[in-house]
Amino acid sequence: MLDKTVVRNVLETVRTEGRQALTAPEGKMLCDAYGITVPKEGLAANADEAAKLASDIGFPVVMKIVSPDILHKTEAGGVVVGVNSAEEARENYDKIVANARSYKSDAKIDGVQVQQMLTGGQEVIIGAVTDGSFGKLVAFGLGGILVEVLKDVTFRLAPVTKSEALSMLDSIQAAEMLKGVRGGDPVNREALADMIVRVSELVNDYPEISELDLNPVFATEDGAIAADVRIVVDYDQPEPRHRPSQDEIVEAMNRIMRPKAVAVIGASAEDGKIGNSVMKNLINGGYKGQIYPIHPKAEEILGHKVYRSVKDVPGEIDTAIFAIPAKLVANALTDCGEKGIPGAVLIPSGFAEAGAPELQDEIVKIGRKYNIRMMGPNIYGFYYTPENLCATFCTAYDVKGSAALSSQSGGIGMAIIGFSRSAQMGVSAIVGLGNKSDIDEDDLLAFFEQDDNTKIIAQHCEDLKDGRAFAEVAKRVSKTKPVVVLKAGRTSAGAKAASSHTGALAGDDKIYEDVFKQCGVIRARSLRQLLEFARGVPVLPTPKGENVVIITGAGGSGVLLSDACVDNGLDLMSMPDDLDAAFRKFIPPFGAAGNPVDITGGEPPQTYKNTVKLGLEDDRIHALILGYWHTIVTPPMVFAKLMVEVKEEMAAKGIEKPMVASLAGDVEVEEAAEYLYQHGIPAYAYSTELPVEVLGAKYKWARGAGLL
Amino acid sequence: MLDKTVVRNVLETVRTEGRQALTAPEGKMLCDAYGITVPKEGLAANADEAAKLASDIGFPVVMKIVSPDILHKTEAGGVVVGVNSAEEARENYDKIVANARSYKSDAKIDGVQVQQMLTGGQEVIIGAVTDGSFGKLVAFGLGGILVEVLKDVTFRLAPVTKSEALSMLDSIQAAEMLKGVRGGDPVNREALADMIVRVSELVNDYPEISELDLNPVFATEDGAIAADVRIVVDYDQPEPRHRPSQDEIVEAMNRIMRPKAVAVIGASAEDGKIGNSVMKNLINGGYKGQIYPIHPKAEEILGHKVYRSVKDVPGEIDTAIFAIPAKLVANALTDCGEKGIPGAVLIPSGFAEAGAPELQDEIVKIGRKYNIRMMGPNIYGFYYTPENLCATFCTAYDVKGSAALSSQSGGIGMAIIGFSRSAQMGVSAIVGLGNKSDIDEDDLLAFFEQDDNTKIIAQHCEDLKDGRAFAEVAKRVSKTKPVVVLKAGRTSAGAKAASSHTGALAGDDKIYEDVFKQCGVIRARSLRQLLEFARGVPVLPTPKGENVVIITGAGGSGVLLSDACVDNGLDLMSMPDDLDAAFRKFIPPFGAAGNPVDITGGEPPQTYKNTVKLGLEDDRIHALILGYWHTIVTPPMVFAKLMVEVKEEMAAKGIEKPMVASLAGDVEVEEAAEYLYQHGIPAYAYSTELPVEVLGAKYKWARGAGLL
Repeated sequence: MLDKTVVRNVLETVRTEGRQALTAPEGKMLCDAYGITVPKEGLAANADEAAKLASDIGFPVVMKIVSPDILHKTEAGGVVVGVNSAEEARENYDKIVANARSYKSDAKIDGVQVQQMLTGGQEVIIGAVTDGSFGKLVAFGLGGILVEVLKDVTFRLAPVTKSEALSMLDSIQAAEMLKGVRGGDPVNREALADMIVRVSELVNDYPEISELDLNPVFATEDGAIAADVRIVVDYDQPEPRHRPSQDEIVEAMNRIMRPKAVAVIGASAEDGKIGNSVMKNLINGGYKGQIYPIHPKAEEILGHKVYRSVKDVPGEIDTAIFAIPAKLVANALTDCGEKGIPGAVLIPSGFAEAGAPELQDEIVKIGRKYNIRMMGPNIYGFYYTPENLCATFCTAYDVKGSAALSSQSGGIGMAIIGFSRSAQMGVSAIVGLGNKSDIDEDDLLAFFEQDDNTKIIAQHCEDLKDGRAFAEVAKRVSKTKPVVVLKAGRTSAGAKAASSHTGALAGDDKIYEDVFKQCGVIRARSLRQLLEFARGVPVLPTPKGENVVIITGAGGSGVLLSDACVDNGLDLMSMPDDLDAAFRKFIPPFGAAGNPVDITGGEPPQTYKNTVKLGLEDDRIHALILGYWHTIVTPPMVFAKLMVEVKEEMAAKGIEKPMVASLAGDVEVEEAAEYLYQHGIPAYAYSTELPVEVLGAKYKWARGAGLL
Repeated sequence: MLDKTVVRNVLETVRTEGRQALTAPEGKMLCDAYGITVPKEGLAANADEAAKLASDIGFPVVMKIVSPDILHKTEAGGVVVGVNSAEEARENYDKIVANARSYKSDAKIDGVQVQQMLTGGQEVIIGAVTDGSFGKLVAFGLGGILVEVLKDVTFRLAPVTKSEALSMLDSIQAAEMLKGVRGGDPVNREALADMIVRVSELVNDYPEISELDLNPVFATEDGAIAADVRIVVDYDQPEPRHRPSQDEIVEAMNRIMRPKAVAVIGASAEDGKIGNSVMKNLINGGYKGQIYPIHPKAEEILGHKVYRSVKDVPGEIDTAIFAIPAKLVANALTDCGEKGIPGAVLIPSGFAEAGAPELQDEIVKIGRKYNIRMMGPNIYGFYYTPENLCATFCTAYDVKGSAALSSQSGGIGMAIIGFSRSAQMGVSAIVGLGNKSDIDEDDLLAFFEQDDNTKIIAQHCEDLKDGRAFAEVAKRVSKTKPVVVLKAGRTSAGAKAASSHTGALAGDDKIYEDVFKQCGVIRARSLRQLLEFARGVPVLPTPKGENVVIITGAGGSGVLLSDACVDNGLDLMSMPDDLDAAFRKFIPPFGAAGNPVDITGGEPPQTYKNTVKLGLEDDRIHALILGYWHTIVTPPMVFAKLMVEVKEEMAAKGIEKPMVASLAGDVEVEEAAEYLYQHGIPAYAYSTELPVEVLGAKYKWARGAGLL
C-alpha cells in the first residue's frame, strides 16, 4: 500500500541538498505515500495559476510561500488565510512573494502553495520526536495555545498499534473534548487513530525523520485532515548499540547470578578491606559453589586456597568479583577474558563517576572483546538469595523471598537492604547497577523473567541508557511479572532544544510516564513506595475483577479508604441489593451497608468474621479492604488471627482474593499489622493510604498484563 | 462610590415578581452600580431603535432578546452576533422577536438588547457561588469549553482583597495565558483583579445573590469588560447559625480543657464499663483537680465520694464527662445546666449517627438554653496533657509536647494515639469531635491559639459545619501557629445542581483546597502525612528565607531529594561561586558541589561536619536537607550524634535553621533517625520524600503566615 519509493526519493533529495527540513509539498508527498489525509492543494508558480488552483479547490483557501530558505512562514509574511475569490488569490500571490523577498532577499522561491482551508471540528496535533533513549515516539494532543501552556500531550513508542493509538485519545487531560461537549460533534476516533498509526510507521520506517508535526489536524465526525505538515530530518544516525539476543542475555545472566564457581579478585584476609568483606559474605552467607580468592602473595584466605590469577585456577569460573583499585581492573579483566569467564562484578569506583571516563571506556572494550558481561563499576555488588550468594561488601542478607530489587545508586541499595531487613521482606535478589557500563535494567528483567524464584521486579534508576530496549523487554516481562520502577530525576527541568511543537512539548518525565504505562510498568512515586510495592504486591493474589469492597469498623477510616480508592484508580463496587441485605444481617441497625460496609466500632470479632467471609465468598466481589478499629471487644491480635483464619479457611475452598488492611488503634496494632502481613494480608498501622496504594499497584499490574 | 439604592431596587423588583434570575439590563444596572465595566449597550423596543442604537454604539454589535421568561437565549434563537450595519440591525430585530415568539408564544418580550461586540484579548470568567458551608465564594478562570472540561478555576471566600484577587490570576493551571504567550499581549492584571474584588463585594453585600457569572470577560492590555452577566437570586436565606464571640469561646473552652473540677456522670466501679475507664484515666493520668463521680446508688468509686447528681456537688464544676446511655443524657444535661456547668463531654453514641437525630436536637436545645458548650456526642473524649487530663475511656497518654490534634472520627482518634505513642510524639491535646453537635474545629482553633502549650494544630475532619467560621478563625490563627487539616471525603463525587457555569465548576474539594490555601491552612494529603506534620513541623525552627541546600553522602539520594523539593514547592538554591568553592574545599575532587552538595559515600564524619557547619553558618542558606549513606567509615549513630552536636554548637551562637534528614542504610539507621528526631532534626530511614514533605509543610506555613 505504502509508496516507499516516493519517500526515499524525497528524503534523498533533501539530504543531497543539505537541508534539515522538508518543504510543504515534500511533506505532503510523504503524507500521501503513507495515507495521511491532507487538504486539497497545489503549487502555483504565478498569480494566474494561483487563481485557477483556488477556483478548482473551492473557496476559502489558504496561501503559503514555498521556499526551502524560509522556515518560519508566518514571520516572513508568507501566509494568507481565508482567500475568498480568484481575484483575491491573484492579488495575494504577488503580495506573498513580495513579502518573502523583503524578508530574505536571496531566498529561493518555488512558488505559492494554494490549499483547501479547513474550518470547524476539533483542532488536534499529531507529531513525532526522536528521544535519545527511547528513539521514535509518536505524540497526540489538542491544538491551540492553551494546550501548549498546559502541556497536555501524550506519547507512545513508535510504531503503535491501532489500539495503542486509540488509547492515546483517552490519555490526555482534555479527552472529553473529543467526545463532543456542549453540543459539539464527537470526532471520528478511528480516523484519528489511523492517522496516529501512520505517522508512527512513517517515522519508524525512516529513522532520519527526527521530528514531525501535523499541526493542526482538523478532526470532525467524518474524518481527520492534517492542515499543515512539518518534517525535520537528521541524517546523522547514532551507532546502533550492541545488544546481545535475549537468549544470550539469559544464558550469561544465569551464569553470573547463579554461578557454580566465583573468583574474588583482590580477596583479602585483612579486616575492613572490601576484598575481605566479600570473602566473608560469600562464606558466611552459605554459598555452596567454589570460591577462588585471587591475590598476588597470600597462600590461603579464610580457609580457601589462593591463586595468583584467575588463569591459574584449574576449574571453570562463572563470575569474577572485583575488589581491587580501578587502575588495576583492566588487566585483571583481560585475564578473565582469557580464562573465558562470562561475568564480572565490578565493585570498584574511580571510573566515569569520578572523572575517569577513559578507564571505563577501556574496560568496556575489553568486556566486548572477550564477551564478558559486566555489572557496575561503582557498585555494592549483588545478592541472590536462592543460592545464598552475597557477592557484596555490604552486610549479608538472607531473608528469602520473591522480590528482586535493583538500584542505580549505592545509597539507595543500602536503603533497600535496610528496609528489607526491617520489614523482613523476602527477596530473591538485590543488585547494584552503578555506572551501568554494560549490564542494565533490561538485562536484569530478562533474567528475572525466567527466574522461578522471582515474582516481582522493582528497580530504581536515574536514567535508562537504552530506553527502547528496556521498553521492549518490560512490555513482555510485565505480562507475567509485575515490574515496578522508581525513576529518579523526574522533576529535573529536562528542557531540550527542539524545533517542532511536539519536540517542545516533550518533557523527559512525560515520556517516561507514558512509555512506562504503554509497557505495563508500574511507576513508584517515592522510594518508600518502591519498597512497599516490592513487599506487598507479590503477597497478594491476582484479582479476578474490578469490584473492590471496603469493610470497616471505623466509619472515619471508611471515608479515608474510599478517598484512597479514587486516588489509586480502584472501583468501589456499587452494592447489589441482595448483597447489601446479606451484609446488613451481620451488622447493627445503625451500621451502614452499601460500600464501605460500616460494621461500627463496638462489634465483636464475629462481626468482622461474618462480613469478611461473606465478602470472600460472594463471586461478585473481587478484592477487600479492611478497616480495623482497636477496641476492648475486638483487640488487635484477636482481629489479626481471625482474619488469617478466615483467609485460610477460604483458601482451602479455593477462594483467594486480594485483601489489605488499615489498622487504627494504639501501638498493639503494629504487631497485628506485622502478623497480617506475614500471613498474606498487607496491613498498615496508622495509615489508610498505604494499604490501598499496594492494592492499587496490584490492580495496575493486572490490568497492564491483560488479566482484567 | 457604590450606588446601593439601585441594587436594592432591582433586587426588590425581582423578588416582587417572583423571579429567580435578573434580566440582562438588570444585571447591567448592578454592574454599573458596582463599577464593573460592561459593553456599551441599550434596549431597543423596535427595529428602528435597534438600527439607531447600533449606529451610536459602533459596529459590530451583538443583539439579544430581553425577556424575563426566556433564560436560555441562544436556544431560543434570541442572539445574533456580528451585526455590521444599521440595515442588518433592523432585520435582526424582527428575526429575533419572531424566534422568541415561536420558542415561547406567551413570553413577555421587553425588546432587544443591542450591545458593543467585543473581540480580541483573553476571554475569562469571573463568577460567584454560594456554598452551604463556606457561603459566598468568588471564582476566576479562563473562558472557553476546554477550561470547563479541565475545571481550571480557582475560588476564594468573598469578599476578597485586591491582593487576594491578584493571587487568583496565578492560581489557575493556565496562568501563563494571562501573561501573553506566543506574541499575545499580557492582560491588565489590575483591571481584572478590580473586577474580581467588585464581584466579591457585590455578592457579599447582597446575600440573596446566590450565583453570578461574568462570562465571558474580555481581558486586554487596556482593561477588562464583562460581555455578559448572569445573576441568579435566592431570597430564602438560611437562619444565621448561633456563634458565640471569640472571647466567649475562649473562656468556655478554657474551663472545659483546663478544668479545676470535673464530674463523671455515670462513673462506675465496675471494670470494663466506660464510666470506670474514665475514672481510672482521670486518677491514674495524674489529674490534680477535683473529681466528682455521679452515680444513682454508689457511695464511693475508686476512693472518690459519689454524688447522686451534679446538683448535689457542693463546689463549682467546670466539665461534666458523660458516660451514660444516650437516652439518659438529656436529663443529666439539664442538671448540668441548672448547676451552671459550662462544658459537657458527651462520650455516648446513639444520637444522629445511629439514626436518632431527635435525641441530638433535644440536647442541642438544652445546651443552648443553659449555655453549655458540648463536645460530641459519639466521641472518645479528650486529652489535655499539660493538666494530666485524660477525659476519655481510651488508653491514657502522657507524652507532653506541643501538638494539638483532633479528629471527627473515633477510629482516626485511636490512630492518632497509637502513632503518637509509637513515635513518642509530644502532644498538648487530642480531642474527639464526633457528631459536632456544638463544639467544632474553629472552637478548638480559638482555644489552641491562646494556649501556650500548643505550637501546632492538626485536625482531621469529614466536613465543616460552618466553613465560613472555620476559615475566618483559621486565617487568623495560622498567622501564629501552623494549622494542618486532613479533609476526608475529598474525592467524593460532590456534584451539585447548579444553574450557572461557575456553579457547575465548583467541586466541593476544589473549594476546600482553595479556601484552605487562602487561610494559610496546610492540607495533609493522607492520614500519615497529618501525623508526620504534627510531629515534625513544630520541631523545626522557622526558616528565614527560601534557599534550601541538600548535603548528601549518597548521590542517588541527592537526586531523589531534589525531586522531592520540586514536589513540595521548595527552592533549591543556585549556589554562588564563592560558596561553591567553600564547599569544594571539604569534599573529594570527584564529588560534586553545586546543589545538591554531593560529598560522596566514602567520607569520614568530619566531611559531614564541615559541610553541614558551613551550610548553617552561611547567611545565604536558609534550610538544610541531609542525605546520609550508611558506611563503615561513618556509622549511623556517629553521624546522628555529630549532626546534633553541630546543630547545638550553632544554636549556642544563635544560628537556628530547619534541618531534616534522609537516612539510607541498614537497620541501624532507624535508631539514628530516632535520635536525630528527638534532637530536633526530623529524620527518616529508607525515605527521601518524608523529610522533604515535613520541611515543605513548614515552608508552606511560613509563607502563609507572611514570615517569608
